[in-house]
Amino acid sequence: MPNPNPEGEEEKAVRIQRIFHALGDPTRRAMVERLSETPISVSQLAQPLAITLAAVVQHLQILEECGLVRTEKVGRVRTCRIEPKGFFVMETWIQERKTTWEHRFERLRDFLVEPESESGADLDATQEQK
Amino acid sequence: MPNPNPEGEEEKAVRIQRIFHALGDPTRRAMVERLSETPISVSQLAQPLAITLAAVVQHLQILEECGLVRTEKVGRVRTCRIEPKGFFVMETWIQERKTTWEHRFERLRDFLVEPESESGADLDATQEQK
Repeated sequence: MPNPNPEGEEEKAVRIQRIFHALGDPTRRAMVERLSETPISVSQLAQPLAITLAAVVQHLQILEECGLVRTEKVGRVRTCRIEPKGFFVMETWIQERKTTWEHRFERLRDFLVEPESESGADLDATQEQK
Repeated sequence: MPNPNPEGEEEKAVRIQRIFHALGDPTRRAMVERLSETPISVSQLAQPLAITLAAVVQHLQILEECGLVRTEKVGRVRTCRIEPKGFFVMETWIQERKTTWEHRFERLRDFLVEPESESGADLDATQEQK
């Protein structure tokens, strides 16, 4: 196989894709915001939302599948809570993008500063683009 | 007015909603990943994508509107680059959620540790849930 770890990269892309897709819906984002305050039951979660309980359950399933929320049933009550792992995946994705463009600025700065001057004037000019 | 700054909160919610919606599409996420490597022209951005130039322009417009990308036309070439502001909005949203649930854990820990023991055993038990 040419790529030693193709599933890892692909799985990572699928995971981040599911997370952004899940949070792209205003109801699901509101559910995540509420659950970050406290774990609550499915019916408590549904109460302020103007949608059916079935729709809430469907949204919850999407949030569980992408790793932003987990639910646990004890007796007749299913409790929903935030799953920090999903947030970690998002933070990692953002950090990777930032690292990539910061490295590019460093290379650009080196390229601009080295041949022309040591004064730092060009360095200020490139930093402005950040 | 009961809320002194209702527009600010609403605008913030709209902005984060647009960002997550924009990144919930795999083509737009791929465009952002590519632009974090280097600024490129619209046609360069379109080249590896199996969609029409018109579709690329539409995706770009969504990415510009939510503040993840900005484009600039010089002569006949429109160059696209990452706009760090959109990333900052996402990071802030994630950090706000984390701060909220970490405060809850602190309150829970204080509640569990104070009345029963000073040994720190309960503290370990609550930390496991993080």
